Amino acid sequence: MNVVELIEHKRDGGKLSADEVRWLIAGFTADTVPDYQMAALLMAILLKGLDGEELASWTDAMLHSGDVLDFSHVAAPKVDKHSTGGVGDKVSIPLAPIVAACGVAVPMMSGRGLGHTGGTLDKLESIPGFRTALDPAEFTRLLARTGLVLAGQSDRLVPADRRIYALRDVTGTVPSIPLIASSIMSKKLAEGLDALVLDVKVGSGAFMKDIARSRELARTMVGIGASYGTPVSALITDMSQPLGAAVGNANEIAESVEVLRGGGPSDLVEITYRFGVEMLLMAGVAGDRAAARVQMQRAVSDGRAFAKLEEVVVAQGGDPAVLHDTSLLASAPEETVVTAARGGVVTRCDALDLGVAAVRLGAGRATKEEQIDPGVGFTVCAKVGDEVAPGDPLVRIRWREQRRLAEAMPLVERALVIGDGPATPPPLVHEEVR
Amino acid sequence: MNVVELIEHKRDGGKLSADEVRWLIAGFTADTVPDYQMAALLMAILLKGLDGEELASWTDAMLHSGDVLDFSHVAAPKVDKHSTGGVGDKVSIPLAPIVAACGVAVPMMSGRGLGHTGGTLDKLESIPGFRTALDPAEFTRLLARTGLVLAGQSDRLVPADRRIYALRDVTGTVPSIPLIASSIMSKKLAEGLDALVLDVKVGSGAFMKDIARSRELARTMVGIGASYGTPVSALITDMSQPLGAAVGNANEIAESVEVLRGGGPSDLVEITYRFGVEMLLMAGVAGDRAAARVQMQRAVSDGRAFAKLEEVVVAQGGDPAVLHDTSLLASAPEETVVTAARGGVVTRCDALDLGVAAVRLGAGRATKEEQIDPGVGFTVCAKVGDEVAPGDPLVRIRWREQRRLAEAMPLVERALVIGDGPATPPPLVHEEVR
Repeated sequence: MNVVELIEHKRDGGKLSADEVRWLIAGFTADTVPDYQMAALLMAILLKGLDGEELASWTDAMLHSGDVLDFSHVAAPKVDKHSTGGVGDKVSIPLAPIVAACGVAVPMMSGRGLGHTGGTLDKLESIPGFRTALDPAEFTRLLARTGLVLAGQSDRLVPADRRIYALRDVTGTVPSIPLIASSIMSKKLAEGLDALVLDVKVGSGAFMKDIARSRELARTMVGIGASYGTPVSALITDMSQPLGAAVGNANEIAESVEVLRGGGPSDLVEITYRFGVEMLLMAGVAGDRAAARVQMQRAVSDGRAFAKLEEVVVAQGGDPAVLHDTSLLASAPEETVVTAARGGVVTRCDALDLGVAAVRLGAGRATKEEQIDPGVGFTVCAKVGDEVAPGDPLVRIRWREQRRLAEAMPLVERALVIGDGPATPPPLVHEEVR
Repeated sequence: MNVVELIEHKRDGGKLSADEVRWLIAGFTADTVPDYQMAALLMAILLKGLDGEELASWTDAMLHSGDVLDFSHVAAPKVDKHSTGGVGDKVSIPLAPIVAACGVAVPMMSGRGLGHTGGTLDKLESIPGFRTALDPAEFTRLLARTGLVLAGQSDRLVPADRRIYALRDVTGTVPSIPLIASSIMSKKLAEGLDALVLDVKVGSGAFMKDIARSRELARTMVGIGASYGTPVSALITDMSQPLGAAVGNANEIAESVEVLRGGGPSDLVEITYRFGVEMLLMAGVAGDRAAARVQMQRAVSDGRAFAKLEEVVVAQGGDPAVLHDTSLLASAPEETVVTAARGGVVTRCDALDLGVAAVRLGAGRATKEEQIDPGVGFTVCAKVGDEVAPGDPLVRIRWREQRRLAEAMPLVERALVIGDGPATPPPLVHEEVR
């Protein structure tokens, strides 16, 4: 095979065979296909697309570029959830223990914050001592023992994706639905799951800004799952405003604990249950939606869900005291409250502005090398549709450095708009894709 | 400026500013823009195009990546001809001395064989001692003295083109009209010409196989010339069969000398005069086409054109004896003649097949490192439309190695087809583009 001929074929709208795709990805991983050839191919793929068969081949070749996990010795059905990322999106943290408490094995592999979106791993690491880097043996042992692991992804899983992603990032080839879908799905399929639920975010704070692109991405990923015989369903959920009230790291852990205690903001609770229902149904541990919801509510009300998170925190080296008293979690020393200058109805509470502001405050990274500050962040006190009186708090800001506060402030002030008319909150779930 | 943003802009069909293009090309030449980013950009350009302004910026940035020649001290108008390449295309070799003998300064910079097409430099080097690598000072001195130089292009001219071309070659980004046009025109405009005539070949033996693409390339190059204020005209000429009878290197020099002596195959003579007329008119040394033709015929018939070539050969270190007696030129020891198996009319005499066969025989290079054999090649005895009797010679093959002959033979035999019906020779010139 000849790399240039394969690039030319894709450039001219042709179709690559499974052998050709496998050879290209293996060659790139083994350094025999150089970066510049892969860069030209990726641009041709972005502009010409991949059809269903090519996408299955591409995903399969990525998936087999490294280790593929096998949890077949774990008897319980293994289901994971993946989110395309958002602001205040801590859903995985309450969801995984609730679902695990209902008898589903959750081998959850999460990522770090990317751009203006938060990362589950960063949030979990605000629990003192909690280790997210587990070797495959420990991961497997913990999954068998507790039915839940909350960790990062091993470097040995899908090495081709790491290399291709790094190249896409610097060659203008990120926003390709087939490349995004195969990147996500190769990593998830390498986890050896029985089923997968996807949270495809849409809105200002999501990577996909419009519903049509989100739907295309969701359908593409569900299609890849089908070609593998792995049931995958997707909910397209709203990310035009932050989810819940907490945006940051330690404060998102505290909010997650609230949900496990039966409280928490209603939007976060509802989204957590919606995904939980999907996971329980796909795992086959509940007969219908109503039964699934009851099982989850029971796991929360009798304390099993909280106990499951505690068990996992202890198993992964974390200090469980912060779960029992979340005021022990990191919190930056200063607080500034942005208040309503007038009365009215909140008409805008922008996820992107607040997400970028949180990064400026130190809750995310502007460069890969930066350390995040777990104690800084926001409490969003008013969301779209809420009535406010003059002087009511809109956002409480926890901050450490005056300079960073000054950089974040204009975005926070711009993020919330109060108007006269009625304003309808966006639906939490826009569509379901199966 | 940010490379990724510029790639994204072009990928999405946007337009790059002159500053952005200059910065990209300068960065690539200076190694601050890496190969993989340029590869992604080139693929985006191939698929999305460059508009007239972008093309002018791109060409200008390439042109200024190295030395730009200045022949303003040479009083005579300076005109060059460039061909996109063909089989048996030795037009430059008789054309340049004829035109120079008529008072046009011709600073001709030629290339080597590429793929199945021959190269003027390779042909000239079959003249013993002839030097084609001249430094800029010598080039300039010879042009002022003799009004004609036949040389290769200095490495200091348009270094960006050499690097971009090498990258295009391995990333499937060669067949882009804007990239081809800017590559050719940046090199020609760096020669400091007053006017330029382009020979855009079309047909099996050309890089452009169809007239629409050839026309687009011709118009694009004429447009770049216009944006520079340099008059450029183009003839789209036929390359479905070889030009003249000789295909090789030394034998093409011999055929060129025939033309300078007033003989030679009629198609080659006619094409040489057609281009000569264009050059004389653009240089302003002839008032109209008829006058230009008469001036050229006179320069041939009174021996000035031949004397001009002799003068240049001597000035560039070559042995003029081979011009006076072309049997002194290299000739491979063996001859095999392919004859007509039946009587009829030649309906096919394929330039691509014969060009590839010539490379297999050793007249061209399969890899950059290979040495060419100046003495091997073909004499094509019958062209499309010619009547032949059984046993008439179709192609005389001069060869040195049995193995190479065996590799070339199937293509030679396939190249010529004899049929019953009448067959019309293709027109020499398909279109003129101004």
